[in-house]
Amino acid sequence: MQELLKGLVVKNDTKIVLLVMDGLGGLPGPDGKTELEAASTPNLDELARTSACGLHLPVAMGITPGSGPGHLALFGYDPFEHQIGRGILEALGLGLSVKSTDVAIRCNYSTIKDGIIENRRAGRIPTEKSRKLTEMLQKEIKEIDDAEVIFAPGMEHRFAVLLRFPYPLEAGAAAINDSDPQNKGLAPLPLSPETEAAEKIAKAAEKLVTRAVELLRDQDKANYVLLRGISQKPEMPSFEEAYGLKALAIAAYPMYRGVSRLVGMDAPDIEGDIREELDFLKSNYDKYDFFFVHIKKVDSYGEDGNFDAKSKKISETDTFIPEILKLNPDVLMVTGDHSTPSALTNHSWHPVPVLMKSPYVLGRLSHAFSERECAKGELGVFHTTSLMPLALANSLRLKKFGA
Amino acid sequence: MQELLKGLVVKNDTKIVLLVMDGLGGLPGPDGKTELEAASTPNLDELARTSACGLHLPVAMGITPGSGPGHLALFGYDPFEHQIGRGILEALGLGLSVKSTDVAIRCNYSTIKDGIIENRRAGRIPTEKSRKLTEMLQKEIKEIDDAEVIFAPGMEHRFAVLLRFPYPLEAGAAAINDSDPQNKGLAPLPLSPETEAAEKIAKAAEKLVTRAVELLRDQDKANYVLLRGISQKPEMPSFEEAYGLKALAIAAYPMYRGVSRLVGMDAPDIEGDIREELDFLKSNYDKYDFFFVHIKKVDSYGEDGNFDAKSKKISETDTFIPEILKLNPDVLMVTGDHSTPSALTNHSWHPVPVLMKSPYVLGRLSHAFSERECAKGELGVFHTTSLMPLALANSLRLKKFGA
Repeated sequence: MQELLKGLVVKNDTKIVLLVMDGLGGLPGPDGKTELEAASTPNLDELARTSACGLHLPVAMGITPGSGPGHLALFGYDPFEHQIGRGILEALGLGLSVKSTDVAIRCNYSTIKDGIIENRRAGRIPTEKSRKLTEMLQKEIKEIDDAEVIFAPGMEHRFAVLLRFPYPLEAGAAAINDSDPQNKGLAPLPLSPETEAAEKIAKAAEKLVTRAVELLRDQDKANYVLLRGISQKPEMPSFEEAYGLKALAIAAYPMYRGVSRLVGMDAPDIEGDIREELDFLKSNYDKYDFFFVHIKKVDSYGEDGNFDAKSKKISETDTFIPEILKLNPDVLMVTGDHSTPSALTNHSWHPVPVLMKSPYVLGRLSHAFSERECAKGELGVFHTTSLMPLALANSLRLKKFGA
Repeated sequence: MQELLKGLVVKNDTKIVLLVMDGLGGLPGPDGKTELEAASTPNLDELARTSACGLHLPVAMGITPGSGPGHLALFGYDPFEHQIGRGILEALGLGLSVKSTDVAIRCNYSTIKDGIIENRRAGRIPTEKSRKLTEMLQKEIKEIDDAEVIFAPGMEHRFAVLLRFPYPLEAGAAAINDSDPQNKGLAPLPLSPETEAAEKIAKAAEKLVTRAVELLRDQDKANYVLLRGISQKPEMPSFEEAYGLKALAIAAYPMYRGVSRLVGMDAPDIEGDIREELDFLKSNYDKYDFFFVHIKKVDSYGEDGNFDAKSKKISETDTFIPEILKLNPDVLMVTGDHSTPSALTNHSWHPVPVLMKSPYVLGRLSHAFSERECAKGELGVFHTTSLMPLALANSLRLKKFGA
């Protein structure tokens, strides 16, 4: 698809805004309404009535997407073809620049007792505490074998580690499982290299855990380190190469800046929430063609199983819609990167509602912005990777295919 | 898909009619209704209520199909896999038989002044005038290098040229860009061969333009020739091989007979409009299994940005529906090859409404024949290439897959 698009893309002065409420899609709560249906969304509802609506599938029917595949699909990259380790995403999001000599690992502080994980996130320890621990680890651990070790503190219980070797790594060198067993009450999984090239890396990672645990032994909660997403940097065409769009990512959470940088978007470090993100959008609106605005908390509340808070965050987002409309983007998409129903306290496989505002749509098929109303829309149920071609088409940035 | 079908196809006495209103799909006009919604279509509306309806995508979401890909998809051929140069289509449509020794070129008479294209279509000069010019060119230009030159007059500003070499051409021999810059106010583009094999052809094509322009120098409007779709004959399985259907194409416009002939349909030259086409359908109804009836003007009015005329042409088409129903086809499909919203004065990426009448459908989901009502239909939003398998299934011409 991206190959095809490259031959069709033209440039013009249009602006495209992609507003992503992370984990937007949901399921009915006690009243039979989803979080989105229960939310007060007069602005989004009005928009939905005159927009092209639909439900999109980030990976495939029945498949629950991680944040990486979810966002890659939104950006038009086939998430099967371009599989990005979570470690790489996290490292990029924390502002590390990743090289072909590097293995990136996403780490969680966690609580272990008698060899069993009691809390996978060390009770979501405060970011400030986490930062201090990570700085301590960096001070004490600077090298493992022949690799330089680079720590990057993250939010709450998260941090990232780069193992930087003095030579480029072979393909498959990071093919190592997570040590995170994904549920509490289980022991951490041993690291098993899946390729010969990965054996050396797996040993270094084991040494990393051993040394960190020694240094954390007196910690109450953060006395263990789980490893996830051990990975190498992938090869991908940039957003500008693929679509001819100069793109700005506006995301307060590191991971989402990370995936944006991976496709070559500018993704400056910013802090705050929707207010700050929209101020940033406005002050940079003249400088880019494409804007990815990421709102994290919708997903976080879904993962916490907090129906009302998720719903409220959606309502809050709705109040900012008029500000975006005032910028008069040629195409505005409002959607999520996947569903996170409070009922499941996790990402889910459900297709994600989307509305696309543009002068070139039918509209009047959906009467509100919700999962059920989007199911009636002109876009049907479709693959998320079609959103970018649609956005380019609706901004008149695509020539016709064939004569 | 066609591979799969070949093993499943059976023959019977059923009849399938595919009625194509070129460029059928549209967008809301000033009153919020699309051209199709604004049209008076009591017969199609009634049919839609008891038919399987949906919206189909000729190429992919966001991708605007040319006429070639649009029709190939309707005929069940993957338009990515089978890319046909417009020159080939045009030559076939004008009644030329194309060989493996030939390069086909679609030509436009155009108006040039001081090296700049003032009108890409020479003000759409009348067909009669165009024919005389092309006959004059044929009289004066019979050979270029070792190629025989065969002209074919077309409608309005269009004509086609075959360069017939005395030997079969290599693959890639026609890989040469258009000289048409696609917009007025620009100079014609120089011809650049993309392969070594194309160098010789590019030179011959340049000589063709030079000699034609000499002969046209006194013309007011038609004083230049733009070249498009320089191409060779592709390899494709025939409609009869693929589906076991003896097929008749009924199209007053050359290009659509061309694409029909390419897949092996009989496509006799006919003139006139819907009246003449339907008379032809009736008088040949006993002789074929499959009938492709093509109505061009719906698209033409869309391309002219004439909402009312497009709408009126659809209304006119509707009045002929009872005549088709009287033939009692086992499967009747009514659709377009792509959308051509008057608002865009061009083909567009929007999915195309379709109704399929057959005894084996659900029906009662769409309450009229329109883009919005078809969006509610049992076929959903789907790839155009699925129409032929559906038509075969609904005419009970497909065995089951697997035991």
